[in-house]
Amino acid sequence: MEEIDFNLNIAIVGLGLIGGSFAMALRQHLKPGQICGIDIDERTVNDALEMGIIDKGFTSGEIALREADLIIIALYPEETIGFVKNNIGNFKKGAVITDTCGIKIDILEQINSFLPDEMDFVGGHPMAGKETKGLQSACIDLFKDANYIITPTPRNKEKNVRLIKNVAKAIGCKNIVSLLPEEHDRIISYTSQLPHVIAVSLMNSDITEDNIGLFTGGSFKDATRVADINTRLWSQLFTLNSKNLLDEIERFEESIKKMKKAIEAEDVNALNNLFNEASVKKCRMV
Amino acid sequence: MEEIDFNLNIAIVGLGLIGGSFAMALRQHLKPGQICGIDIDERTVNDALEMGIIDKGFTSGEIALREADLIIIALYPEETIGFVKNNIGNFKKGAVITDTCGIKIDILEQINSFLPDEMDFVGGHPMAGKETKGLQSACIDLFKDANYIITPTPRNKEKNVRLIKNVAKAIGCKNIVSLLPEEHDRIISYTSQLPHVIAVSLMNSDITEDNIGLFTGGSFKDATRVADINTRLWSQLFTLNSKNLLDEIERFEESIKKMKKAIEAEDVNALNNLFNEASVKKCRMV
Repeated sequence: MEEIDFNLNIAIVGLGLIGGSFAMALRQHLKPGQICGIDIDERTVNDALEMGIIDKGFTSGEIALREADLIIIALYPEETIGFVKNNIGNFKKGAVITDTCGIKIDILEQINSFLPDEMDFVGGHPMAGKETKGLQSACIDLFKDANYIITPTPRNKEKNVRLIKNVAKAIGCKNIVSLLPEEHDRIISYTSQLPHVIAVSLMNSDITEDNIGLFTGGSFKDATRVADINTRLWSQLFTLNSKNLLDEIERFEESIKKMKKAIEAEDVNALNNLFNEASVKKCRMV
Repeated sequence: MEEIDFNLNIAIVGLGLIGGSFAMALRQHLKPGQICGIDIDERTVNDALEMGIIDKGFTSGEIALREADLIIIALYPEETIGFVKNNIGNFKKGAVITDTCGIKIDILEQINSFLPDEMDFVGGHPMAGKETKGLQSACIDLFKDANYIITPTPRNKEKNVRLIKNVAKAIGCKNIVSLLPEEHDRIISYTSQLPHVIAVSLMNSDITEDNIGLFTGGSFKDATRVADINTRLWSQLFTLNSKNLLDEIERFEESIKKMKKAIEAEDVNALNNLFNEASVKKCRMV
């Protein structure tokens, strides 16, 4: 494994679950003085300093970005675009910027439309999270064995793409895969957005009252784990990737219909075929 | 907590995940000689004897049931009904029988139609399981903090219902709730069967190939945990409770449609309302 360049100054923007976990996981690869944290919430910045996971902390980019060679933005999509736009004059020449958003086409198109040539933006998506948010939820092993998708464009310098791959390795990710932005947004609508649509819909489909928890087993708890959803983040992700997501919802509706038809007909053979198909796919996936 | 009567001889029928875990969890409350295991597979019986989780083992009921005061049947629904029917002459007078099936109306109606008056069948449903099956998956803490639903009928003697409640407590269950059989079958179609329908449908809705595991995060893994489904068990559960399950699937389809409509319209307010509804319900449930 190629090591991260230890002479790199890193700025992490947004010290929530993802940004905080990035800081913790990168800590062990960097010397003191190399991690700068930026968050609009002063208390969060102070907490991160107290926890010792950042060396310097700021509530805006002006001073913080001057020395940063690598900027990891861990904000929601709209805020990610806004941050780069608002700080366009504050970045160091040659700086590499990456993000952590769950959609890529919009992010890349918008940011590349105003990014100066001497800076490089490499799209990234660590497939890790939790059903809770904020710095207090951050942990050093959030990315352990997780998937990390990178979406390079022809504009990106190869060494910068390699740098982001090495960062992903350094924080513990297992599979680091490159995809075209449009492939990413299509696949992710199935593997991440659809399960969130399902969790929320399953929770909301309940007509019973307070005591439903008395009658659940593991399958319900797992299927609704993410139902206490981060409203601002997921409404952005759903609307920015609505075409792909609607396609996947419709495919899922067809899949549910097949099952319904087999149950209606009490057709055990048809059920068994559907079960076997799912079993094979599930086992192949793990 | 009322203790189990230690002078009770217990027979466990079916030494799979559920029956094996019952034996392990009950072991600590019973003296040697009190647990008898029955399984049609001789190797499983021998394995259970070697593991020391049963005292005696049989591949059929004739001898095994003669001394049993309490019979815990951990078989699939049709096999549960078949076992009681085929062994109707083998039970001890006054024996209490319970089951572990995920549906209750059919089980109770059929078994009570041929059960002699001097025997009592108390319907039970431990809400615990795993995505794997068989004795090798059994574990002593499978039922720890799980829910246990009992569905007493007017036919049941109160002391026998109390006995099953105490067994549920003894194996580690947290919430032991009594429901009418029809309430059970309706609620369970939402809290257990629907999540299984969803897991299978989500898995089957995939058009991509082998490498999907490279692009998943926790939400997809959780939503499809049970997709490698026990075909025989779940085709019985789905068809025996088809009316309730179809109602729940339709309610879920409506719930998905609401979400779809909000995404189609890119209506962030509507999305936020749906998210908030789910969050409140999820938090209240935990």
